[in-house]
Amino acid sequence: MLELSKRVIDMPASAIRKLHDYSVAAKNKGIKVYHINIGQPDIKTPEKMRRAVAECKAEIIPYTPSQGLDSYIKKMAKYYQAHSIDVKEEDIIITVGGSEAIIFALMAVADPGDDIIVPEPFYTNYNGFAHMAGVNIIPITTYIENGFKLPGIEAFEKVKTPRTKAVLFSNPSNPTGTVYTREQLVDLCKFCYDNDLYIISDEAYYEITQRDKIITLLNLEGLDFDIRNHTIVIDSISKRFSACGARVGAIISKNNNFMKQVLKFCQARLCAPYYGQVMGEAALDFADEYLVELSQEYQKRIDATCEELSKNLKIKYHHSEGAFYIMVKLPIKDSDDFAVFLLKDFYSINPQTKEKETIMVAPARGFYKTHNLGSDEIRIACVLEAEKMRRSVQILNEGLDVYLSKK
Amino acid sequence: MLELSKRVIDMPASAIRKLHDYSVAAKNKGIKVYHINIGQPDIKTPEKMRRAVAECKAEIIPYTPSQGLDSYIKKMAKYYQAHSIDVKEEDIIITVGGSEAIIFALMAVADPGDDIIVPEPFYTNYNGFAHMAGVNIIPITTYIENGFKLPGIEAFEKVKTPRTKAVLFSNPSNPTGTVYTREQLVDLCKFCYDNDLYIISDEAYYEITQRDKIITLLNLEGLDFDIRNHTIVIDSISKRFSACGARVGAIISKNNNFMKQVLKFCQARLCAPYYGQVMGEAALDFADEYLVELSQEYQKRIDATCEELSKNLKIKYHHSEGAFYIMVKLPIKDSDDFAVFLLKDFYSINPQTKEKETIMVAPARGFYKTHNLGSDEIRIACVLEAEKMRRSVQILNEGLDVYLSKK
Repeated sequence: MLELSKRVIDMPASAIRKLHDYSVAAKNKGIKVYHINIGQPDIKTPEKMRRAVAECKAEIIPYTPSQGLDSYIKKMAKYYQAHSIDVKEEDIIITVGGSEAIIFALMAVADPGDDIIVPEPFYTNYNGFAHMAGVNIIPITTYIENGFKLPGIEAFEKVKTPRTKAVLFSNPSNPTGTVYTREQLVDLCKFCYDNDLYIISDEAYYEITQRDKIITLLNLEGLDFDIRNHTIVIDSISKRFSACGARVGAIISKNNNFMKQVLKFCQARLCAPYYGQVMGEAALDFADEYLVELSQEYQKRIDATCEELSKNLKIKYHHSEGAFYIMVKLPIKDSDDFAVFLLKDFYSINPQTKEKETIMVAPARGFYKTHNLGSDEIRIACVLEAEKMRRSVQILNEGLDVYLSKK
Repeated sequence: MLELSKRVIDMPASAIRKLHDYSVAAKNKGIKVYHINIGQPDIKTPEKMRRAVAECKAEIIPYTPSQGLDSYIKKMAKYYQAHSIDVKEEDIIITVGGSEAIIFALMAVADPGDDIIVPEPFYTNYNGFAHMAGVNIIPITTYIENGFKLPGIEAFEKVKTPRTKAVLFSNPSNPTGTVYTREQLVDLCKFCYDNDLYIISDEAYYEITQRDKIITLLNLEGLDFDIRNHTIVIDSISKRFSACGARVGAIISKNNNFMKQVLKFCQARLCAPYYGQVMGEAALDFADEYLVELSQEYQKRIDATCEELSKNLKIKYHHSEGAFYIMVKLPIKDSDDFAVFLLKDFYSINPQTKEKETIMVAPARGFYKTHNLGSDEIRIACVLEAEKMRRSVQILNEGLDVYLSKK
């Protein structure tokens, strides 16, 4: 019999995208759906980035070097240096989005059957990437009740095995919006240093947070040990520059051997997209001011969303410190079922327009490795402007009441 | 000790790109280098494709659906149907170049430790993709002396094991330029059908060959068995539309379950590049005439190259039937050493311009799995216009004489 691999059959399906069919059906019934389920911002890709592509002089759209366009890498290194962050050209490899950066990092630090420790809830696709790489995610559970604060290092010590190769986390965190403190980062680094582990910091949402409130792992100074060889930072232009479709990210590390070895994966796939790299390069010309404005805009959205959430006493949420996600705990048992309900069996009448409206949310089970955690949580992405976020939470509150009354 | 994975350390380095440093050094010495080592054509990316990007109205460059832009997939299905090839929208997934298509296909049909049979010489990055997927390539050797003709199916029967999951080949072949006959394809299909194997046809160079001279596996009619569930075709816009940097390819299969499962890999990495897909979609508007002209241009280059090669009786070569590569057998023992020699210790004076010139070629060892095969062969890519190809072969001939006289 013609069979498929166990690896593809066991591959987790997208937790976020599987609601797609219900959303299409809702729209076909004339219901407006607010998409607060996925990190696709409604903010325009900066015009200068699109213009850089439109005015691109290249008559041949060629392979770039496997590590990325020279001019882009040079400019990126300068950008870091201008921010007093010690990143050189040879510390940068441009990847096909943050996605490829994560999977290449995992494949380079861990062999099939090895373990990586990941605080949960975590970006759902870590599950997929780890599965593709044959690597086991060992979760460290954090809880909404205390703002998804990391437990002490003893929790990490406890799950460590001889096959543990790295700690992976996102900072600011998708999905929790948590920003790690200096103290937490130092503890994590010490744990990795003492145990010969890599520390992989996924910083796709880094500058969406106010710069003075977040520390990149590339700039953790004043340690009494040298963590640089252990440090791998994941970068992406998708969220910070509303350029999800560009498919451009980066791996940044000062570990020369790691970079040299990862480059072999990059050579096999030839290069990252040319136009996307042109966009990334253009973004560095105006990143400083732009990102300040952007972080203010997202702060406004988060605050508006949380203000609405705070009106519903049945709901617990964590007021995000960074990124643009908010985790919400609901008095329900199955957030997958609730997410389907919102699309399939519910709508709210907009008081102004009288239109039928609903929301698509991300059920949180996919953000956990531990079985059944997250079944009473959803993730909200503040990717719509503040008023739409407010309206979305009103719909959530109304939908929750109807859902609870039917159970 | 901080260690890297065995998987990354054992990952093969690019056979083609490792000569890069020598080429840079040669240029720094004022020597002009003809790059006939890599499949980066000097033909302009069609203006209509670049214009489609320049005039793109999107103000947000968003994630596309994981399977690809709806409009692109629709148009591609229509394109196939217009050519009487039965491909429907649901049979198409857009990928990040042919590279991702191949690695996803391998990962979906084979588990780590499984075997795939590949006629050698083969596209060098199959080695890398198979290594990343943990899959063993079992080579079937073909020889320049008989035009890299496939041996009979008994050769495939002989290497088949219970862990064999697929046969993978490129048609037209990179690096040999061989085009499979209908009879050969039918035999391969029968072998795969009888043994429950997938048949993966990498058709990145398909329409670079005159249409009446090549059969896509999507259109192999008149079989007395149904091979459709077994068939996986790899597509790419890189070569046919000189758009290597677009990073857009496709997986095409009528096996619904395979496609549904592969989509999970696609969901994890979110999507293929937006602008690249815009280019691919634009290409379908003028593909028919354009590709006829393109195949004529490459035919001219191949014929010119072969005419020059034929003047040197020390050299054996295979006159390509498709794609734009030519394998050349030289009276030497180490083509890696020879390729370095050409860049490092040799130049030719151009009779017209009096400039110093040399060539960069691809040593063929990287195209074989069997140890040491290809060490007396190189691959020439006819990616430069005919006169430059002629001059390149003159340099090759001259360089070979000098090299042989020094040994």
